[in-house]
Amino acid sequence: MTNTVPVLPSYVRDGWWTPTDTSTRGGTATDTSGPSGAGVVVRDASTGEPVTRVSTDGLDLVAVLDHARDVGQKALGDLTIHERAVLLKRMALELTAHKDALYEVSARTGATARDSAFDVDGGIGVLFTYSSKGRRELPNANLILDGPPEALSKDGSFLGRHVYTRLSGVAVQINAFNFPVWGPLEKFAPAFLAGVPTVIKPATPTAYLTEAWVRILVDSGLLPDGALQLVSGGARELLGQLRLGDTVAFTGSADTARRLRGSVVEGVRFTAETDSINASVLGPDGVPGSAEFEAYVRQLVTEMTVKAGQKCTAIRRAIVPEALVDDVVAAVDARLERKVVVGDPRAAGVTMGPLASTGQRDELHRQVEKLIGAGARVAAGPADFAAPPEVVRADGTVGLSPDGAFAAPLLLRFDDADAAALHDVEAFGPVASVVGYRDVDHAAELVVRGGGSLVTSVATSDPTAAAALFGRLCAANGRVLFLDRDDERTSTGHGAPVPHLVHGGPGRAGGGEELGGIRAVHHYMQRTAIQGSPRMLTELTGVWHTGAPVRRAAGGGGPAATGVGPRDGVAAPAEPPGAMGHAHPFRRSLAELRAGDQVVAGPRVVTSEDIEHFADFTGDTFYAHMDEVAAAANPFFPGRVAHGYLLVSLAAGLFVDPDPGPVLANYGLENLRFLTPVSPGDAVTVTLTAKQITPRETDDHGEVRWDAVLRNQADEIVATYDVLTLVAKEWPRG
Amino acid sequence: MTNTVPVLPSYVRDGWWTPTDTSTRGGTATDTSGPSGAGVVVRDASTGEPVTRVSTDGLDLVAVLDHARDVGQKALGDLTIHERAVLLKRMALELTAHKDALYEVSARTGATARDSAFDVDGGIGVLFTYSSKGRRELPNANLILDGPPEALSKDGSFLGRHVYTRLSGVAVQINAFNFPVWGPLEKFAPAFLAGVPTVIKPATPTAYLTEAWVRILVDSGLLPDGALQLVSGGARELLGQLRLGDTVAFTGSADTARRLRGSVVEGVRFTAETDSINASVLGPDGVPGSAEFEAYVRQLVTEMTVKAGQKCTAIRRAIVPEALVDDVVAAVDARLERKVVVGDPRAAGVTMGPLASTGQRDELHRQVEKLIGAGARVAAGPADFAAPPEVVRADGTVGLSPDGAFAAPLLLRFDDADAAALHDVEAFGPVASVVGYRDVDHAAELVVRGGGSLVTSVATSDPTAAAALFGRLCAANGRVLFLDRDDERTSTGHGAPVPHLVHGGPGRAGGGEELGGIRAVHHYMQRTAIQGSPRMLTELTGVWHTGAPVRRAAGGGGPAATGVGPRDGVAAPAEPPGAMGHAHPFRRSLAELRAGDQVVAGPRVVTSEDIEHFADFTGDTFYAHMDEVAAAANPFFPGRVAHGYLLVSLAAGLFVDPDPGPVLANYGLENLRFLTPVSPGDAVTVTLTAKQITPRETDDHGEVRWDAVLRNQADEIVATYDVLTLVAKEWPRG
Repeated sequence: MTNTVPVLPSYVRDGWWTPTDTSTRGGTATDTSGPSGAGVVVRDASTGEPVTRVSTDGLDLVAVLDHARDVGQKALGDLTIHERAVLLKRMALELTAHKDALYEVSARTGATARDSAFDVDGGIGVLFTYSSKGRRELPNANLILDGPPEALSKDGSFLGRHVYTRLSGVAVQINAFNFPVWGPLEKFAPAFLAGVPTVIKPATPTAYLTEAWVRILVDSGLLPDGALQLVSGGARELLGQLRLGDTVAFTGSADTARRLRGSVVEGVRFTAETDSINASVLGPDGVPGSAEFEAYVRQLVTEMTVKAGQKCTAIRRAIVPEALVDDVVAAVDARLERKVVVGDPRAAGVTMGPLASTGQRDELHRQVEKLIGAGARVAAGPADFAAPPEVVRADGTVGLSPDGAFAAPLLLRFDDADAAALHDVEAFGPVASVVGYRDVDHAAELVVRGGGSLVTSVATSDPTAAAALFGRLCAANGRVLFLDRDDERTSTGHGAPVPHLVHGGPGRAGGGEELGGIRAVHHYMQRTAIQGSPRMLTELTGVWHTGAPVRRAAGGGGPAATGVGPRDGVAAPAEPPGAMGHAHPFRRSLAELRAGDQVVAGPRVVTSEDIEHFADFTGDTFYAHMDEVAAAANPFFPGRVAHGYLLVSLAAGLFVDPDPGPVLANYGLENLRFLTPVSPGDAVTVTLTAKQITPRETDDHGEVRWDAVLRNQADEIVATYDVLTLVAKEWPRG
Repeated sequence: MTNTVPVLPSYVRDGWWTPTDTSTRGGTATDTSGPSGAGVVVRDASTGEPVTRVSTDGLDLVAVLDHARDVGQKALGDLTIHERAVLLKRMALELTAHKDALYEVSARTGATARDSAFDVDGGIGVLFTYSSKGRRELPNANLILDGPPEALSKDGSFLGRHVYTRLSGVAVQINAFNFPVWGPLEKFAPAFLAGVPTVIKPATPTAYLTEAWVRILVDSGLLPDGALQLVSGGARELLGQLRLGDTVAFTGSADTARRLRGSVVEGVRFTAETDSINASVLGPDGVPGSAEFEAYVRQLVTEMTVKAGQKCTAIRRAIVPEALVDDVVAAVDARLERKVVVGDPRAAGVTMGPLASTGQRDELHRQVEKLIGAGARVAAGPADFAAPPEVVRADGTVGLSPDGAFAAPLLLRFDDADAAALHDVEAFGPVASVVGYRDVDHAAELVVRGGGSLVTSVATSDPTAAAALFGRLCAANGRVLFLDRDDERTSTGHGAPVPHLVHGGPGRAGGGEELGGIRAVHHYMQRTAIQGSPRMLTELTGVWHTGAPVRRAAGGGGPAATGVGPRDGVAAPAEPPGAMGHAHPFRRSLAELRAGDQVVAGPRVVTSEDIEHFADFTGDTFYAHMDEVAAAANPFFPGRVAHGYLLVSLAAGLFVDPDPGPVLANYGLENLRFLTPVSPGDAVTVTLTAKQITPRETDDHGEVRWDAVLRNQADEIVATYDVLTLVAKEWPRG
């Protein structure tokens, strides 16, 4: 019978592919791991019915990689970051439209609706988040600036700065079985945004769910050529084919990570996110009846049962005050009893499904045996953990399910906090161990004994205890969550990575970093220091650098506006005034505006009457503006000085071009620094230069960042800042 | 005789240490590499005279590591980042005061004064730069925030954000012989700033120069206990003792990097900076007579001869237009002839010294033989490269120096650009190979064939050629330098890492990153995502988060100031007004001010007269403020709206406390965003909250960042920004 289930297709070189002869070559189908001629049979987690066979026998993996590096790189490079971000949103909408179908497939892996919300909705959410973050936080280009320019010569003619550009190769993912939707998508989204093509290798037991969403994306037509390939089966030889510019993002066991890491050459970035022995600490103040105690127990039971505990981030160690161990055990026991119904996820009322496969279940039993051998006692759950539990079957009846991969939730208890197995053995299922700590230092020490974790949570309202733990836990954790009465209802939970924050942790957790907003995009890019003249850095980055050539308008809109000579450094002659050279840059639409378009306006003399008037008008009568003697006693002022906000306001009066035009609004200002005080009688000039131009993909305007420099009559810099405006893409000539 | 030179001491566990019995144990001294009982004899590079012996036989390396992790971590953790930054500056001054002595020792390694300026002054410069960057760009604390808070719940009660905290272990450095001062210091400075103790393992041939500067620092008394240890000899077993929280920063050959990387456990961060086959490209426009041609040749000769070419960053491949190969060869030949005098650096007129050791010279000969075997011809320099060159001896005479490690500069030429050896074999000395390219694409392809480099330089004034190369080179280089007529005089040079920019590169260059300003400090810290309520994140970071409790003053300084109710989110009740609860936060010195101190002021009604008046006064008559019809046609405005700068000015009028007090100056403003337009008749309220407090170590004031929120009468947020002020540490009660 197993030979009759179809082989799961791969999606490679922009087409679907299956082995040509899987039913006979290599003999009969097999249930063992590792591909064989007839493929590995994958079964429904609850019923044991065969779902599909997995095989990539005969697939040309080198051609897959070459397709990504050639066609995929080209197609993605033809788009900007924002264009790719828009595609991510459209993919997210497409998957949302097919969510019901995905939930149905997901149920076969043992996932309840709550589990699928984690996996399916979580994965879609990653796409949405990267789409919006990409457009909000990154330029609409293919180059990301990292940090400000660094002046490397006194005269400003030699600058340095850091840029990120996409890697030249392919992003290979090797995924775990537990999140067949979220797992690949959380790696795909940042790689896609960066512009690097992806090859997905799903885990065999749930590969058919990955295939289901990949098919939806393929059918949608949204995928650029070569941007995404799916290898539904063995792909170990693939790693040996990788080279500089390629990456591997592995999720799975630490042992496998170590082995695979050794099989890639230097120059290939290999990151691992491996399951770790995560801890959850109940603070000394978390006594029964407190909001923190309730939240702690609720979270612990959630972590034990969501995805039947098959989460790399799940709580394995519950570290609680010695005096509260009994209370925690009793509360967990009661809650498990009250809330958890194990069974086929397709049956009504079931809150926890089976493990992903009977192989996983058997492995879980082996690890629990190890823990018990090391001194653990069963505190809540079945005394005979290996006996098949009674479950709710798909038809609603209750009884044994001999072919399903079910396991009941199990809380173990260690009397000896120093037992090595407590901190080292992972039972990857609905299993956690509780242990008592003496004081907060002891609690921190126990957490750290996990050797590095993805996440630790702490339930406490006491800032002193929280701070003591914080100081020790950060260095050993990728994420630390503090649960208290303020956030216990809104917390996203111990076990839930969110796309805004990094996912990964040091040491045993693999040392990798995924997600974390734009940080994950950088992972698929090379950071390079570039050095050169302002002109050259402007040419290369598209962003104007002080000292680069400008296209200068005749004057600003201020009453006393005059064009003044070049001031922005060496080697920056204004272009000879031509037709465009005379246009005020506020009269240029995005289609016409170039980085370096400039207006110099002023001078405006700032009088003591101006200062007094401004003080009176705004109410800002700070003594430095009003009182000559008091101001002179201030360490920073020579005497009375103009308000900083007065200067910025006057500067706008000088540079603004008042009539309706392509510049639609000033939406903000950044990096304002007042460098030289302005005394009554000083004359201020402003130089405003278009620095960075970011068209928006889905609007008919974009963002323009202007470099503003105020100078006094002695040419000293009074203030510098960036003015942020919205500018129309097109504007009719008036 | 060699047995009589003293053994080089190590500095461990805050004391000097030498092997107890090196003169007899293990027999006689040896010149071979690797420690032996009597130590390795190290010789003067020019004369061959023994300088010292190197041995760590009997040193307890585990005790060294434990001392760092215990005493060093404690002593460094008792200081803040700024306190450590101040120490770095004092160390830099101390080394500067002893520079002559260091130059004298440096000359024994073969370094000319120019070479020592690279190594000694360069190393001191790193300390200065990290001292100032640390104080300017990092908080005066032990926690670095990474990025803004991320809202993870709609009501603002659950936030996430990233923090860097120092690693819990020891930073082990394994250094190359070529920069015995700069090399260890460029790793030490960021680790020290991060708060992580360092163990330095210098390379044997120049270990005595490292010992010399370490001794100056030890004698200065500036080193906190356990912060710096020096293991002057073999330390390979040390790597096996490392664990989670420790780091290794290796500099040297790719082969050694690979071997050492395999000997540390997972969880130990291992970074490598390995020498690479760096390239320098002459653009198609770089014809003889152009500024770029001259700059290119000058730089190439500099890179061949500084440190006798013993730089990981030196140019190994000169990639020039096919038609210009002869011109480049002729120009290099002429310049070598005119400018380069090889000899003992202590002799007057010498511009290039010997290699660091005869071993290095012999190795250089072997690599040059490989290049010649692969098709290279001698283009400039001695036809018989292996023959000892005539050199200027220390006494000024010219002749052979049989015991010195001299080599003459050598320019090779490849006719076949595809010769593998050209892109793969490194002759680590005054040797470069020139090769012709067909077009810019071909040039880029040749550069990339190096398999990843520390640096590539490009001499061109043509933006099109520069951009084409840029697009290909970034992903394969840690640094890319553009040389043109604007920067050729001020460029810091192809081979010079600067502390502001990253040093390291992908692939063959080791994949590591050092320097790069604060980026290198992060390398010695763990990035952790923290999640929690605003109150808890405020407690843990010391930085106020929106929604956390506040200490609110009775009212602002504005004419119509009134206190309004809590608005900044949930769970943020104002403290009941007590004595301090009523003080305006501008009346609190740094000693009294706390994150969360707040003033709410307003409302102030903004009238159309205000808007017109402001327009008239400042000259900012932008139509959105002046013309109801035109403003309403703008996509963002309901009609005439107030100037953004008017709102910010009025807000200051509301929140400022006018009399002399601890708040000394407003030095800037950041992250201003206008979110809701203000129409005539709207009433604006401002909430100003102390967010981040940074005392300055060497001033009697510090920086306070205030969170400013403007709201209208409907409680909509009108604008948000950060106000930056300088505040006195102490202020007499008035």
